[in-house]
Amino acid sequence: MVEFYIKNEVTHELPSNDLPKFYSFGVPTYTNLGDQAVSLAQKKYIEREFPEYQFIEILEDDNDEGIEIVKKAIRPGDIVSFVGGGNMGSLYTDHEEARRKVFSTFVDNLTISFPQSMHFEDNEHGKAEEKLSQAAYAKNSHLFLIARDAQSYHRMQTTFKNKVLFTPDMVLYMKPVKHEVERSSALIVLRHDSEKVVKQETVDGIKNMLSDNYSVDETDTVLDTVKRITPINREKLFKQELELFAKQEIIVTDRWHAMVFSVLTGTPCLLFGNSYGKGKHAYFDWLEHINWVSYTDEDDLERIQQQVNELMQVHTHEYDIKDDFNQLRHVIQLNSNKYGL
Amino acid sequence: MVEFYIKNEVTHELPSNDLPKFYSFGVPTYTNLGDQAVSLAQKKYIEREFPEYQFIEILEDDNDEGIEIVKKAIRPGDIVSFVGGGNMGSLYTDHEEARRKVFSTFVDNLTISFPQSMHFEDNEHGKAEEKLSQAAYAKNSHLFLIARDAQSYHRMQTTFKNKVLFTPDMVLYMKPVKHEVERSSALIVLRHDSEKVVKQETVDGIKNMLSDNYSVDETDTVLDTVKRITPINREKLFKQELELFAKQEIIVTDRWHAMVFSVLTGTPCLLFGNSYGKGKHAYFDWLEHINWVSYTDEDDLERIQQQVNELMQVHTHEYDIKDDFNQLRHVIQLNSNKYGL
Repeated sequence: MVEFYIKNEVTHELPSNDLPKFYSFGVPTYTNLGDQAVSLAQKKYIEREFPEYQFIEILEDDNDEGIEIVKKAIRPGDIVSFVGGGNMGSLYTDHEEARRKVFSTFVDNLTISFPQSMHFEDNEHGKAEEKLSQAAYAKNSHLFLIARDAQSYHRMQTTFKNKVLFTPDMVLYMKPVKHEVERSSALIVLRHDSEKVVKQETVDGIKNMLSDNYSVDETDTVLDTVKRITPINREKLFKQELELFAKQEIIVTDRWHAMVFSVLTGTPCLLFGNSYGKGKHAYFDWLEHINWVSYTDEDDLERIQQQVNELMQVHTHEYDIKDDFNQLRHVIQLNSNKYGL
Repeated sequence: MVEFYIKNEVTHELPSNDLPKFYSFGVPTYTNLGDQAVSLAQKKYIEREFPEYQFIEILEDDNDEGIEIVKKAIRPGDIVSFVGGGNMGSLYTDHEEARRKVFSTFVDNLTISFPQSMHFEDNEHGKAEEKLSQAAYAKNSHLFLIARDAQSYHRMQTTFKNKVLFTPDMVLYMKPVKHEVERSSALIVLRHDSEKVVKQETVDGIKNMLSDNYSVDETDTVLDTVKRITPINREKLFKQELELFAKQEIIVTDRWHAMVFSVLTGTPCLLFGNSYGKGKHAYFDWLEHINWVSYTDEDDLERIQQQVNELMQVHTHEYDIKDDFNQLRHVIQLNSNKYGL
């Protein structure tokens, strides 16, 4: 039975009230806390900034069934959206298929593709997937794609005919948090998927280097302590993760969202690249002015040591990324104005 | 007497016809070929993509007088613009003053600030200038600021209430050119202004290094062979500069537009930074997928040598940046639709 998540409750039917609806499709249940944080941030953003809409989340597991039910209930003025993140393209075809289906179904409503990085591989498989997405997205003239880095902005504009906006990753909308815990260790946060490019040799060298001064742990932002995350337990797990980050003297990672969590908690963080530059570009686009995080492609350990040392010296400062979401705000505002909401 | 440049002619009166007008203010007469190329590219863009408008250029030298004349002639549907480049902010107050005057005068017409980098210094002078610009820009609710790099996009959105778009530098709209000349030398293109940060030691090292294999010349994109450039002689000088670039085996520079000229001519180019990162950010935002150009902050000569060697190995390829101007295209298109042009 389909689950609809509204506020912090789950129901099996769409509410029968007159409020305009903001449907949030593609909500993950897998245990990648970066992706979970994205869907949480979308909810916070819409509920805080556009309270005139009732925010309804539909799990990606329920995509097909959810679409059928929303199809019957949707009204002009309602907004449809698909989750942001780093999976638009040919690397994660399940997600891409779910996205195509949502975009090509609700073609009469404002449709928002929350901030994504995009990567269709330059091979036969990639080209075939790209064609399928082009055909599906083209059906929806009310669809706005949002790129969360300039590389993806370029790719979306050259690949699709849809309008493309430019904003940061939604998680950067989350408020920074102060934790009154003592920082006492170092954490290495590494991906274990096909996007990994940092050499094991470099990782081992960093571990050795850090262990001279800190107790060093290694982890990933993909949890293995829970099997499934939903909008009900998502925020608690996200907060726990931020607490973990806030305890660290330094984070070394190749996960973009580990850098974002470091930004939110004021934790020094050095980010390495992934296979197609999504973290690198997002860093240079949005975070270079934040002193306690930095990006590197180095494999020279002495230079890495120097970068870590520099990060440890800096003081945190105020920052404000909210205005960078203005292009998104503007299209939703236009929809509200148009329908008198 | 005010000069208006229309097509390739100069007149002293505005034309008395019924064509909608596109007024291009802030056109430089100084001999920086990068800035000259920007104003040339704006003309090419509007004349090619929006031929329904009559494109009229007004020199920055004539700003005050030009404003008075245009004020009397302007009609709804006409578009006003101010030149793009890298001088929005407190470093070049003459330009900033001219810009404020244009934006705060034509408040009832679509007003376009062509793609700029922005930098208000973090000191008393910078803050004071910023306030003046905020007050002037705020008067114009039809003003669209365009950022040509993500760092400036963030700065514009946090500094001004105006809508902000994101596109490349206008010169990247220019078509790539093939020159049938033999490449036979190396060219070092360096700025001599307050934005310079590359150490003389590094420059000398690079010169020595390159002179092992090439005849090495040093120049700047600011000409000292002419005193004044106008829309009449601008294109010829631009083409000559591209010819000069096309003859080089390698360009080493700290000038953003020297990298752009290298892109257009398929010339290998290594770019160093300036005082506030405008070239660096524009490179990562728009050019990283172009194989024959690269950015560096290195001062280790061995590593610089390696980067130069890598650049010399690559083959040029097709590229297309035109779709990256879509946000600009869209606001002009909306104006044309609104006024039935």
